[in-house]
Amino acid sequence: MSDMQQVTHVQNIHYDKVEEALYIIDQTRLPGEEVFLRLETAEEMYQAIKLLQVRGAPAIGICAAYSLYALARQIPHGTAEEFYASLCKAADYLNSSRPTAVNLSWALKEMLAEAKRQLELPREELLEVLYAKAADIHADDIAKCTAISEYGLSLLKDGDGILTHCNAGPLATSRYGTALGPILLGTERGMHFRVFSDETRPLLQGARLTSYELQRAGVDVTLICDNMASIVMKNGWVQACFVGCDRVAANGDTANKIGTSGVAILAKHYGIPFYVLGPTSTIDMNCPDGAHIPIEERDGDEIRTMWYEKPMALPEVKCYNPAFDVTDHELIAGIITEKGICRAPYTESLAALFEKN
Amino acid sequence: MSDMQQVTHVQNIHYDKVEEALYIIDQTRLPGEEVFLRLETAEEMYQAIKLLQVRGAPAIGICAAYSLYALARQIPHGTAEEFYASLCKAADYLNSSRPTAVNLSWALKEMLAEAKRQLELPREELLEVLYAKAADIHADDIAKCTAISEYGLSLLKDGDGILTHCNAGPLATSRYGTALGPILLGTERGMHFRVFSDETRPLLQGARLTSYELQRAGVDVTLICDNMASIVMKNGWVQACFVGCDRVAANGDTANKIGTSGVAILAKHYGIPFYVLGPTSTIDMNCPDGAHIPIEERDGDEIRTMWYEKPMALPEVKCYNPAFDVTDHELIAGIITEKGICRAPYTESLAALFEKN
Repeated sequence: MSDMQQVTHVQNIHYDKVEEALYIIDQTRLPGEEVFLRLETAEEMYQAIKLLQVRGAPAIGICAAYSLYALARQIPHGTAEEFYASLCKAADYLNSSRPTAVNLSWALKEMLAEAKRQLELPREELLEVLYAKAADIHADDIAKCTAISEYGLSLLKDGDGILTHCNAGPLATSRYGTALGPILLGTERGMHFRVFSDETRPLLQGARLTSYELQRAGVDVTLICDNMASIVMKNGWVQACFVGCDRVAANGDTANKIGTSGVAILAKHYGIPFYVLGPTSTIDMNCPDGAHIPIEERDGDEIRTMWYEKPMALPEVKCYNPAFDVTDHELIAGIITEKGICRAPYTESLAALFEKN
Repeated sequence: MSDMQQVTHVQNIHYDKVEEALYIIDQTRLPGEEVFLRLETAEEMYQAIKLLQVRGAPAIGICAAYSLYALARQIPHGTAEEFYASLCKAADYLNSSRPTAVNLSWALKEMLAEAKRQLELPREELLEVLYAKAADIHADDIAKCTAISEYGLSLLKDGDGILTHCNAGPLATSRYGTALGPILLGTERGMHFRVFSDETRPLLQGARLTSYELQRAGVDVTLICDNMASIVMKNGWVQACFVGCDRVAANGDTANKIGTSGVAILAKHYGIPFYVLGPTSTIDMNCPDGAHIPIEERDGDEIRTMWYEKPMALPEVKCYNPAFDVTDHELIAGIITEKGICRAPYTESLAALFEKN
């Protein structure tokens, strides 16, 4: 599709139905190398998520759905109950790869619910139903990203400066992405934006992925270190902050890549609106507030030695390396979903999204 | 001296009077290697400052003073006027190496003023006067850092958590340092602190220098990425922020390492006092406010490729790489100098420091 080619030249997740094989682009090797991995075993799928070869809350969900289908094909023949038990076990295993993003467990639950509903079908038909469900989750994310992009774009005007943190573009989702969606959609329509991409330590998703995606899409992007967001805002260069999300609590508190809460506090200080963009599958109505969102802690070597030619700190120095932080709902000007833009009070506006169904 | 051994095991700047040679430790190679450089030519001195082999506002001033003395020794014999003109030329050249820290021009001006006062002396005596002046600036910084450390320590209690940004320890100054001074002094006295060191991108002075100095001094230090300061504060782990400074304007606006203003905004949000520590030589009463402080911009490759095994962003991606930012005086709970702690309104309290003389 020509639209797609314009804004994203690599496909992050691809299930080849002829080969019956799941491929992902290894995001840890971008932008230097475009390497596709074929995921076959449960361990490979678990590691791909754990090691961030596939990352971005919606993309993790899509990958997990296809993974579960691929694993379902490997379940030995037996009773329907045995099949379902094996499927649950595989889903639990995949779900344990990363704790913060809710889309992972959401997609796996959707797949399991579908299997349960159709458990009486002959095995081959049941497998096709599961494939269709995974493909549905994928197609649905494309539709949702497009809708999110339209809503987000309604908040921007030509020439605006936008600051983003981490990567919530096509690689993290499908098609346009969430936080980058309005920018890519507007660019397709001939609008011009000036985007500031936080490099996003320690894993540098902003440098490696966001600035790469935007540069390749012809967007005016400037890469900065995370600690430069304050001066960039002070210089008057930013009219809005757009970020993705890994889990939104019922009160609007939002877990996203570490550092997001700092960006929101700076934006508030400088009077710049701070928006969160994500599909409703990222909203966890069972989670009352940010204090209930588990925050993944990762290895300190990601700070001390990863990426570098040599260690950048003494090996014995302690590190604290949380992968996410929670942005208080009071700092958020709006949460942009495929169903529209939610405003405070979020307890009401988010609940209304689910009532609409 | 045993005090000194306890808190700093490397000497950042050393003038060997027997050899008549200026040595600095190459801070760009820490913590992996402790390499001492002998600076002989004006170009070597300029490059050492420019490339941050010697860095930290007070340390740059000390190095510049010894450098000017060493260059004075190389001036061909001639009239007093010719000598002074050559000295001014050398000072101008050194002063052009970095624009933001005022200590550089302050130390050079002090040296030139001393030369001018004693210009009628025989050459050898005049050179000794210049050496004495440089050694004085050095000794004076040690005394000032000690006084700053005492004042800073009066603001801390045992068990406090302190967040610092960049490096304002012994390597950046002399002896105790400024921002790290109260921590090192208190540690010598048996107090315990928990320090969070921002790694400070792009040049990683927090990872390479601060966590190294504190770890070696036996302080409980935890290294974090810059974007983790918000969650660390939110966790309740920080009772005070201590940072150094490169230039303080007459109204209290403070230029310091890029990202400092962001830390100050976060501290305000979380209700944590944010202190600036530095000698009065860092205060520029001729500079009315932060808008008048020149901000050095450095090469984008410091963000894209430096330190790394391979480029971390597409080579064609634009970068914005300011080395400093300005923290608004309204965000600062106190400016701690060797003469005492200044509080708002800074226009009055800073002016009073200079009247006391």
